[in-house]
Amino acid sequence: MEERTEINDLGEFGLIDYLTRNIEIYNASTILGVGDDAAVIDHFGKQTVISTDMLVEGIHFDLMYTPLKHLGYKSVIVNLSDIYAMNATPTHITMSLAFSNRFSLEALNEFYEGVYAACEKYKIDLIGGDTSTSQKGFVISVTAIGEVAPDKFVKRSTAQKGDLLCVSGDLGAAFLGLTLLEREKKIFLENPQVQPDLENQTYVIGRQLKPEARHDIISFLAAKEITPTSMMDVSDGLSSEILHICQQSKLGCVLYEEKIPVADDSRQLAMQLGLDPTACALSGGEDYELIFTMKQEDYDKITLNEEIAVIGYMTEPEAGSHIITRSGNKHTITAQGWNAFK
Amino acid sequence: MEERTEINDLGEFGLIDYLTRNIEIYNASTILGVGDDAAVIDHFGKQTVISTDMLVEGIHFDLMYTPLKHLGYKSVIVNLSDIYAMNATPTHITMSLAFSNRFSLEALNEFYEGVYAACEKYKIDLIGGDTSTSQKGFVISVTAIGEVAPDKFVKRSTAQKGDLLCVSGDLGAAFLGLTLLEREKKIFLENPQVQPDLENQTYVIGRQLKPEARHDIISFLAAKEITPTSMMDVSDGLSSEILHICQQSKLGCVLYEEKIPVADDSRQLAMQLGLDPTACALSGGEDYELIFTMKQEDYDKITLNEEIAVIGYMTEPEAGSHIITRSGNKHTITAQGWNAFK
Repeated sequence: MEERTEINDLGEFGLIDYLTRNIEIYNASTILGVGDDAAVIDHFGKQTVISTDMLVEGIHFDLMYTPLKHLGYKSVIVNLSDIYAMNATPTHITMSLAFSNRFSLEALNEFYEGVYAACEKYKIDLIGGDTSTSQKGFVISVTAIGEVAPDKFVKRSTAQKGDLLCVSGDLGAAFLGLTLLEREKKIFLENPQVQPDLENQTYVIGRQLKPEARHDIISFLAAKEITPTSMMDVSDGLSSEILHICQQSKLGCVLYEEKIPVADDSRQLAMQLGLDPTACALSGGEDYELIFTMKQEDYDKITLNEEIAVIGYMTEPEAGSHIITRSGNKHTITAQGWNAFK
Repeated sequence: MEERTEINDLGEFGLIDYLTRNIEIYNASTILGVGDDAAVIDHFGKQTVISTDMLVEGIHFDLMYTPLKHLGYKSVIVNLSDIYAMNATPTHITMSLAFSNRFSLEALNEFYEGVYAACEKYKIDLIGGDTSTSQKGFVISVTAIGEVAPDKFVKRSTAQKGDLLCVSGDLGAAFLGLTLLEREKKIFLENPQVQPDLENQTYVIGRQLKPEARHDIISFLAAKEITPTSMMDVSDGLSSEILHICQQSKLGCVLYEEKIPVADDSRQLAMQLGLDPTACALSGGEDYELIFTMKQEDYDKITLNEEIAVIGYMTEPEAGSHIITRSGNKHTITAQGWNAFK
């Protein structure tokens, strides 16, 4: 039988001590971490970048098919992604949790294994948090703190007409992974004897359950001395994010369907599920890729990087925001992104 | 009939635009606020202090007797209190919410009125957040960011033997306010015809529903050039906080019952409810006063400040942590503080 330790037995402070007993500090800027009213960080003349995200059970994740370790990892990643999307380097996080008494200490421990794995990989210091009970469900709230050289951060509102529109990695896979997991859940609930059929789908499942944040793209752009003119991460879906950049920069854009990067695994699965791969890329969220605009003159510097695709360009606002399909048709881009309120 | 606007009608981005439409910026350090992947703050050579707190419906608050405006106010205050407890000045917050669809736009608006009122009073910039639905209940997660001159922050672990143990304001009132509200709720549930009897109890009710953070104490200490040797805020109860300081500073303490500040209103109500006023002060939480230690030689500087009481002193660890009662008896201090896991 698996071990089960009740969290009640430790109390709040015992729990915090337990969960932070092996905590590692990676940044010299961490003057004071967990264990006081607040943490203290010193940014040595850099600017501080802050972002926060909340993940709610039943809304953002389903524990039926989400291993807690992956959930811990992902809850860090989605926040780091926002810091990278500012062209900044994440350095610290705080992690607050509320959970009902159906969670054991072993379960929380598994969650924190994922949190610490992400912290180690990205050299992030966990410097504080809050733990609490909830009447129902599991709620995770993470705040990420990063640093950037003064005024080197990149906003969404500063794209210029004629800039190239670029995206990293490939899109749609996280949504397809979710679709697959939801399908298998449904089958399982109808007939618990049937084993889930997820073979050969490790790519899309991995993209959904254990995403990464694109620090490599930020490093590459810095090494090539490219400052994006605007940037954000793809959490709600490509079309939704493009419209944010267009609206906030007061521009239009042209996007080419054939240029949108979709992995072979994603394309095949989409077909198999009767879905349009392009629609998955445009409207499926949670890819945590970076979408950015840059000056045309920087184009030569990125051609050899297979992780960056130029998918279109920015136009005057009057032209609107359009996608040119493979067959040459022109459609207005609409935000079909994942909407937590629908 | 009261207006009710469904949040679904706005969508997440419409909601954020709506809730932040009148946002004010008070700090020159706010380079970039709400509306991008992250916010940017510049601390001009100061150290950054970060704290976070989560409030969960049914655990930390009861909407049956908590007006949403007060809840918004309090959710900011409890976080600012942690920053002041570091001897730092809070400057920024992020605010994340999850709420079920029983909340209308008008309800959220009321909540934010309280948030903005606290921000205005304490000159805090709201720079980011996240809004999401929940399956059940209301969850609030706030992260507060502050600044302090390099290495001027005050920890819990640095009290010295012989230091005076001080506390601001008075204690126990917030707990008594909660006891009263819970009593009236019970009566109401048993007989909805009975009107709540809260007359003459505005002080304790106010301390529970609309606490303040003690920035005045921090300013006073700075003006008098007193640097506390250790400090924290009273959120779980005096005895629990004293034990934190003792344990983290590896010291003992002696505390005098007669010196513990309890307001007349609190004392009278406690008697009326058959409660011991000292027990309310020791074990009742949520007063958000500051408890700190300071060198004996600073004593003369605080005697005229009626908002600061010297309640005891720090001893060698072997002596343990004790309270001397009015009748001269000596008891070991135990943490009876409010525990979210009980």
